[in-house]
Amino acid sequence: MNLEHLKAAIRDIPDFPSKGIVFKDLTTLLKNGPDLHEIGVALADLYRELGVTKVVGIESRGFIGGSILAYELGCGFVPARKPGKLPSVTIKKTYAKEYGVDTIELHSDAINENDVVVLHDDLLATGGTMRACYDLVKTMNPKKIYINFVVELSALNGRENLPEDCEVTSLLKF
Amino acid sequence: MNLEHLKAAIRDIPDFPSKGIVFKDLTTLLKNGPDLHEIGVALADLYRELGVTKVVGIESRGFIGGSILAYELGCGFVPARKPGKLPSVTIKKTYAKEYGVDTIELHSDAINENDVVVLHDDLLATGGTMRACYDLVKTMNPKKIYINFVVELSALNGRENLPEDCEVTSLLKF
Repeated sequence: MNLEHLKAAIRDIPDFPSKGIVFKDLTTLLKNGPDLHEIGVALADLYRELGVTKVVGIESRGFIGGSILAYELGCGFVPARKPGKLPSVTIKKTYAKEYGVDTIELHSDAINENDVVVLHDDLLATGGTMRACYDLVKTMNPKKIYINFVVELSALNGRENLPEDCEVTSLLKF
Repeated sequence: MNLEHLKAAIRDIPDFPSKGIVFKDLTTLLKNGPDLHEIGVALADLYRELGVTKVVGIESRGFIGGSILAYELGCGFVPARKPGKLPSVTIKKTYAKEYGVDTIELHSDAINENDVVVLHDDLLATGGTMRACYDLVKTMNPKKIYINFVVELSALNGRENLPEDCEVTSLLKF
């Protein structure tokens, strides 16, 4: 499926969140019903025959495509959240960001060794958050882990920070 | 449709986020594929014949059901976010919480006067955040606004804080 026409619906925001960064704003794509539908079907088409049992969406924007992907596949949705947000027993990982550190959490009972998991976020930049999410999910010993994004910023080489033995797929590359 | 059986999949967490509050944890529902599917269909069944053009989901947990609802209806999804997260021109509203204040933001071009809008969050407690979201969306003059939750905590009387002329629907009442 050719999705190149969807790129025109994504808005460039210069100097957000900081000077010199051109932010890819997907809200202009998401607010259009036909575009949102096409994204959901295209995400699910990548994984339909693979026995996926859980989609993990990374807070916050990864909740959007991640929950739609889970819904379209008929599997469960698991939120990977910022620290202190999940109410039950969690596992967590702290990772380096450009300035300082950040932490990501999952419920300890969210995934088990029978699961086939897709990790989803809206955008692959440097890959640091997704790598932390992968490392966390890996400790739960699922059968298989896939990694998925709506948009990939190819120039930032985020794939280099993701595990080599894991299939990484993005719908739209810039 | 009787959804009472889904209540058993929701986990009670005592004393979260603070002492004396019993938190309704929906993650145990969301991670189950058939339950997630049933919730998505039930949400959409409430609005199928009403010409809905946009679903607004409130950050973060409202992104999950809100994006699934938008997808199932074939309409657009609009995120209502915490301050400073939306990259383009926004409108915002600050509202009182139990302790202190909070602010919610929407992109100024997210909704227009041709829209029929569903505002979605996962849980109705006191209704303060949803009321602020409603007031904000109302300034954009859509044709019609509906309000929707997955879970309603009836004892907290959150409906009293929501506009009387607006249809408020929740799937599961506790």
